[in-house]
Amino acid sequence: MSLWYDETAGSLRFGLKVKRTLYVEQSEFQKISIVETERFGKALLLDDTWMTAEGDERTYHEMLVHPALATAPKIERVLIIGGGDGGAAREVLRHPDVETLDLCELDGQLIEAAKIHLTEIGSAWDDPRLNVHVGDGVEYVRNYDGPKYDVVLIDGCDPIGPAAALFGEPFYRDVERLLADDGVIVTQSEDPHIYHDVHVEIVKRLRSIFGQAAPYYAGVMIYPGNTWSWTYASRTVDHRALDEARVERVAEHTEYYNREIHLGAFAVPNFVKRAISS
Amino acid sequence: MSLWYDETAGSLRFGLKVKRTLYVEQSEFQKISIVETERFGKALLLDDTWMTAEGDERTYHEMLVHPALATAPKIERVLIIGGGDGGAAREVLRHPDVETLDLCELDGQLIEAAKIHLTEIGSAWDDPRLNVHVGDGVEYVRNYDGPKYDVVLIDGCDPIGPAAALFGEPFYRDVERLLADDGVIVTQSEDPHIYHDVHVEIVKRLRSIFGQAAPYYAGVMIYPGNTWSWTYASRTVDHRALDEARVERVAEHTEYYNREIHLGAFAVPNFVKRAISS
Repeated sequence: MSLWYDETAGSLRFGLKVKRTLYVEQSEFQKISIVETERFGKALLLDDTWMTAEGDERTYHEMLVHPALATAPKIERVLIIGGGDGGAAREVLRHPDVETLDLCELDGQLIEAAKIHLTEIGSAWDDPRLNVHVGDGVEYVRNYDGPKYDVVLIDGCDPIGPAAALFGEPFYRDVERLLADDGVIVTQSEDPHIYHDVHVEIVKRLRSIFGQAAPYYAGVMIYPGNTWSWTYASRTVDHRALDEARVERVAEHTEYYNREIHLGAFAVPNFVKRAISS
Repeated sequence: MSLWYDETAGSLRFGLKVKRTLYVEQSEFQKISIVETERFGKALLLDDTWMTAEGDERTYHEMLVHPALATAPKIERVLIIGGGDGGAAREVLRHPDVETLDLCELDGQLIEAAKIHLTEIGSAWDDPRLNVHVGDGVEYVRNYDGPKYDVVLIDGCDPIGPAAALFGEPFYRDVERLLADDGVIVTQSEDPHIYHDVHVEIVKRLRSIFGQAAPYYAGVMIYPGNTWSWTYASRTVDHRALDEARVERVAEHTEYYNREIHLGAFAVPNFVKRAISS
């Protein structure tokens, strides 16, 4: 027998047929569920919200990582906030120029569950360049006093529950402080329809802090609402300034990302344009 | 009380909360349902599949229509096959250069129901440039011997049931015959994930007939799977050859489409690129 697992977002819902449940635990921070779906294989839910799935994670993780890694002048030192499933780290570590990747995830239990059950997503845990810090990302960036990062990637959940602070101005200001002058930050910035106001607010806030910020878009099947967004910000770097060699090298391995996708994804629909400029 | 209406596509489903049912009839060709949803207002289902909704139809109709209408050298004579909800016609008729719009819809009962219940979508039925033909689009293009069309838009359902023939090579060959030498055809070409093989086949088939064909993409919330596609084909016209004045004029009224969206939407993800070239 198959059961439907539906994520409800107001008056719409998205469901997947589930063959079996592999892991359900309440951690210190959230309910962690890992199930085997018919369509996408193993999938992760946090507090009953679809997060990622082995058969549908490439677009999300490639689009979180490669636009920044393909344009920042230096990519030696990279920080991921969140990313406990390991997918973003895997994509970062495809780039041989990355020397150090720090990953700060709040929920150590999530990492442990992902290491056991989501091995196709988190396939780079053993890379010697990766340093995992279990702890609060907001505190990590507030207290950090090491060498500056070239790229910071924010891979958090929706702005409710433990991830809410990852959308606040104080957090972004701390990120700016630990970023190199020619550094790049990318944050996931929600669905421009269902989380319209949050999406617009993130873009405006990053523009006010960095002077420029550009949202970009791609479809992620597992998120109800269809279109996902990320926002790119940097004091000095233009998101179109591609390092062609890096793009070409990484696009041999990507399922979604490539040069044209990079340039095309930054096209902003009229309804978002008008909201940002209002 | 609200009820969920779920469209099931294999082992995933997409549902909307429905406040009330406005119309349910079995026509000669299909089950036509019009319901009032909480999120998107009035919505149309054909054979229990979400087709369009007042609060989510702009992206689909704008992206079906404007890439062709913004690039074809002439746009005096336009043909829509399908399009019984009236949304595509409305977008075509935004262009003052259009002199004649023929619309051939199989199901006259659908047009009548849409005219009563979906008035925000089909708001151009009374435009004197519009000629509605109720009948089979496949026969229409086979038997047509009038002046050539500048643009042909295929606005059919999924390739099951009455719309299946709108995806076949004989149909496309007939469309090519009635198209001006510098004419443009655009067809909806399904979701590149859920209907992956159909999508790839449409692109390949149009390339073999027209010499060139370019798929393009945008998110449509109401379609389970997240990313919708259309495919642009023409013997002589490049899809990037924008008529800037037309783009600027129409983008004053669009919610989704604009110049950057036009150029960006044609970026093809790696997984589709590889399938098309294999």
